[in-house]
Amino acid sequence: MIKALVRRLSASSAVTTASKRRLISTFEIPEQPGATLSAAKLSIEKTTSPKTKIAPEKLVFGHTFTDHMLQVKWDATDGWLDPKIVPYQNLSLDPATCVFHYAFECFEGMKAYRDAEGKVRMFRPDKNMERMKKTAARICLPTFDTDELVKLIGKLVALDSNWIPSSRGYSLYLRPTMIGTQASLGVGPPSSALLYVIMSPVGPYYPTGFKAVRLEATDYAIRAWPGGVGDKKLGANYAPGILPQRMAASRGFQQNLWLFGEEGYVTEVGTMNAFFVFQNGAKKELVTAPIDGTILEGVTRDSILALARERLDPAEWDISERKFTIKEVADRAKAGTLLEAFGSGTAAVVSPIKEIDWHGEAIHVPLQDGKETGVIAETMADWMAEIQYGQKEHPWSYVIE
Amino acid sequence: MIKALVRRLSASSAVTTASKRRLISTFEIPEQPGATLSAAKLSIEKTTSPKTKIAPEKLVFGHTFTDHMLQVKWDATDGWLDPKIVPYQNLSLDPATCVFHYAFECFEGMKAYRDAEGKVRMFRPDKNMERMKKTAARICLPTFDTDELVKLIGKLVALDSNWIPSSRGYSLYLRPTMIGTQASLGVGPPSSALLYVIMSPVGPYYPTGFKAVRLEATDYAIRAWPGGVGDKKLGANYAPGILPQRMAASRGFQQNLWLFGEEGYVTEVGTMNAFFVFQNGAKKELVTAPIDGTILEGVTRDSILALARERLDPAEWDISERKFTIKEVADRAKAGTLLEAFGSGTAAVVSPIKEIDWHGEAIHVPLQDGKETGVIAETMADWMAEIQYGQKEHPWSYVIE
Repeated sequence: MIKALVRRLSASSAVTTASKRRLISTFEIPEQPGATLSAAKLSIEKTTSPKTKIAPEKLVFGHTFTDHMLQVKWDATDGWLDPKIVPYQNLSLDPATCVFHYAFECFEGMKAYRDAEGKVRMFRPDKNMERMKKTAARICLPTFDTDELVKLIGKLVALDSNWIPSSRGYSLYLRPTMIGTQASLGVGPPSSALLYVIMSPVGPYYPTGFKAVRLEATDYAIRAWPGGVGDKKLGANYAPGILPQRMAASRGFQQNLWLFGEEGYVTEVGTMNAFFVFQNGAKKELVTAPIDGTILEGVTRDSILALARERLDPAEWDISERKFTIKEVADRAKAGTLLEAFGSGTAAVVSPIKEIDWHGEAIHVPLQDGKETGVIAETMADWMAEIQYGQKEHPWSYVIE
Repeated sequence: MIKALVRRLSASSAVTTASKRRLISTFEIPEQPGATLSAAKLSIEKTTSPKTKIAPEKLVFGHTFTDHMLQVKWDATDGWLDPKIVPYQNLSLDPATCVFHYAFECFEGMKAYRDAEGKVRMFRPDKNMERMKKTAARICLPTFDTDELVKLIGKLVALDSNWIPSSRGYSLYLRPTMIGTQASLGVGPPSSALLYVIMSPVGPYYPTGFKAVRLEATDYAIRAWPGGVGDKKLGANYAPGILPQRMAASRGFQQNLWLFGEEGYVTEVGTMNAFFVFQNGAKKELVTAPIDGTILEGVTRDSILALARERLDPAEWDISERKFTIKEVADRAKAGTLLEAFGSGTAAVVSPIKEIDWHGEAIHVPLQDGKETGVIAETMADWMAEIQYGQKEHPWSYVIE
């Protein structure tokens, strides 16, 4: 994997820093030596003591887990060992294991839904698995055939599908995770790893309707930077964001609006991508930050952009991936051309924003009368749910056999 | 802890972004609710099956561990539970534990040495524990009384002191580690944590004399950023550095010389701080990057600076913590005023540099005739070893009773 990358980087002496940066961020990785990941080799050990399910309305995000988990071990000599579905259980790891010391860890967040006919559907699992593969490669964890992992996850979901509440708004949150398991302290590429998937039934993010949030525009702490790893789904990107979030919360703001650079470019909101709606003369603009290495390549972000380009009238709408600053947002609020703002992510799908504090100045974001959301956020949530719950057939919806 | 910080940040409306950034990086943390960390509460469970020790000359860094480990649990309600020394053993953790997903983890690296009289000494453990406390606080892990943790580590070292080889150059590498142990997927401050210390006997870094390294100056991947967490000993800072290191290695360079910004400021080398020696007219200058949030506050770095200021003749030497660029290094090499370069860290103490590749240009760094080191690196290694091995009494050397 390194050799192929190095060949590409070294092929031309005219390779610029910017193009090297792009390559390290997005290069495709050939298979490693040893066995490839294979769903055909799956074995299943069912639990003999199924857990008691709690009432759906009492579910708290990520606190309750299903009866089983997927585990696949990898080592540098043998490649991927045979996948196993086993009862949900603790991991037993040497305290020197590299995941505890050097953050060799990456994950994904995705969901499975039960449709009106009782069928179980995943939403764009291929996109999540492609991102996981790129993320793993960036920290020298092993890569894998993404179709095989989607199949394996499908088997796990099918086995525990009785954990998916059937009411609209409920789903099964899937957490594919990969950790380095080499038990030594030298700082280097892990010679062994564990891929596992756990699943948690979750309730609607807004059980009683949308709740728009107040944000603190944050420039004293920086989430990500060019040449860094802020575009990857690495554990490393998360722990450092908690203290700024708590500081914002202590001042009455639910989340951070992450800014970048002296210009104050808007990048993300909390752990979500950020969308804004502006009025430009007669046209409206739906805008989000571009994929430049400093923002996560959100699957929900991508889906919202695609739906907007497909379904919003281009005579009335521009759909933009471009840099924009907190100053532009503030100026537009004053001028009356800031129409809406929301975050996007797997957990909430959309998270409407009603106010942004920027150095003590309150930027007010309009909402619909009597609602805690703008019209685009609400529309996107509906469009996404129709696909996720199979009301409208769509190639993004992956029916589990 | 958050409230006190927020009070300080909010006390003045004139607080600037730069001063907020400084505060989030360095604030002092009041004790949390619940019990404080207390060495007096230590219990010891000795192993009934001591491991077989391997021959000292076969030791590989961080592969062999002693018979015992220290474990102290913390939770948000009770605070620090009673410390325990137990046989070295696996950790059993729920797969949803936050250390696996969001990199709630920090560590330290320090050493214990056996002196000529057989006494066991730690080197500046107070500095490492202060850094660990600051690092923990930055990711909302619990803080602690650093003196108590030094005492506890001393007890562990004393119990396993028969693992410290007595030959010069050998030592016991100590790895204090703290991980978040809350087993749920919400992204927030961990409500429970585990502090543990494991220990690994290590041989001399240069068993047959110094080996100077060749570096690749790296600007396409950026290790740290102002407002980020590159000054903290977080696991999050390590995994992302491995791919660039392997890419450099595949081109024949042992390590990366990490650059920052369009200017190409020199920040660190691999996982070490970087020192350069320049000739300025009649005087020489020992220079390293300043503590500005983008470099680790190395204990070896601090020690070298202190020894240089104390023992090098100020009529002949300037000791500088200042920004300097790779271009300055290259220009000085051409002009003959680049005298020496080396990395500094706990594992190697000093790591001499003989060449730096910068966009295909080879910058040659002088070495002493017939040696793979410059004179200052060699002198510093000697001065440090005299203190570490107790040949010269010094307040930095902490004798374990």
